[in-house]
Amino acid sequence: MARTQGSHSDITGPRIREAALALFARHGYAAVSMRQIAAEVGVQAGALYNYTPDKQSLLFRLMYEHMQDLIAAYADQDQTEDAAEALRQFVGFHIRFHLQRPDEVFIAYMELRNLSSDNFAQIEALRRTYENALEAILRKGQAAGAFDIADTKIATLAVIAMLNGVMTWYRAGGRLSLDEVEQAYWDMVHRSVTA
Amino acid sequence: MARTQGSHSDITGPRIREAALALFARHGYAAVSMRQIAAEVGVQAGALYNYTPDKQSLLFRLMYEHMQDLIAAYADQDQTEDAAEALRQFVGFHIRFHLQRPDEVFIAYMELRNLSSDNFAQIEALRRTYENALEAILRKGQAAGAFDIADTKIATLAVIAMLNGVMTWYRAGGRLSLDEVEQAYWDMVHRSVTA
Repeated sequence: MARTQGSHSDITGPRIREAALALFARHGYAAVSMRQIAAEVGVQAGALYNYTPDKQSLLFRLMYEHMQDLIAAYADQDQTEDAAEALRQFVGFHIRFHLQRPDEVFIAYMELRNLSSDNFAQIEALRRTYENALEAILRKGQAAGAFDIADTKIATLAVIAMLNGVMTWYRAGGRLSLDEVEQAYWDMVHRSVTA
Repeated sequence: MARTQGSHSDITGPRIREAALALFARHGYAAVSMRQIAAEVGVQAGALYNYTPDKQSLLFRLMYEHMQDLIAAYADQDQTEDAAEALRQFVGFHIRFHLQRPDEVFIAYMELRNLSSDNFAQIEALRRTYENALEAILRKGQAAGAFDIADTKIATLAVIAMLNGVMTWYRAGGRLSLDEVEQAYWDMVHRSVTA
């Protein structure tokens, strides 16, 4: 019995996650009820509470797992000592990771306002961890004389914002291949931090 | 009687607009009812329908007026023939205009998904008009040899995305003055389009 329940929630968990993600992205967190999420998954609303204590926890978990996946995937890459090469790698990684997760990206921006203050603080800390990885590259290049940056904190935020823009317009099969887009952004990012 | 009604709606219109903007930004369009907007303004729900036929029209009007204000304010600036100077002006204008309108900026991004397809097409056309003003500057600088840009369309989207990032983190009274922020972004934008 315990095993059956266990395997049920192993399957149901990801389906609840997927349904909540899609519904939050389409209608917004505040407009979606636990009942709607349950209906989308095809279970009774009560079954949701085996997986998550409430809607706030569900939202937090989506955002938390997204940020943890991002940080883990970035850390998994081959590390390079060369700052310019590390920056090129960051540009390609950031674009490709986020293009595969449009709903997560949308929610990560849009639903910050609906997190409780404790949950918000945790998500913000993860976001800062990721930003710090980029800032470390910029500082290293600055120290080595490869970059010329007035304010590495602003440069970090400017580069990430520029790259995030890709998610609002890029569509596979459009005028430019992903390689071409990556090359164009790398070129602009590199110039923006070089004298 | 007609005059009294007229002056009533002159006052009520902006208050409805303001209440809808604040409520949509806080809770999201889908989660806000016409009844809530009316309660916020302090009128009966029926009074809203003197101002707008429905909630979709209200959303569209907020977004449409925001884009029209943006285009008109940009056109109102002193025009310069020099492409680098025009780009510097664009950077300052874009940051300052949008920093004064955080709710409009948030809604312009977040609620595109809730526009009817006709309304979406109109907002997209206005957005393209504004983007085209920047692209014209980039092309002009490119033709004059002041800029070196592989793809002016991508550069346009990249510059606007970079500048939009300011709205997510800048707070008056923080570490940097608005002039310093503008200078830092101008420097990065200028380098990003220069060989």
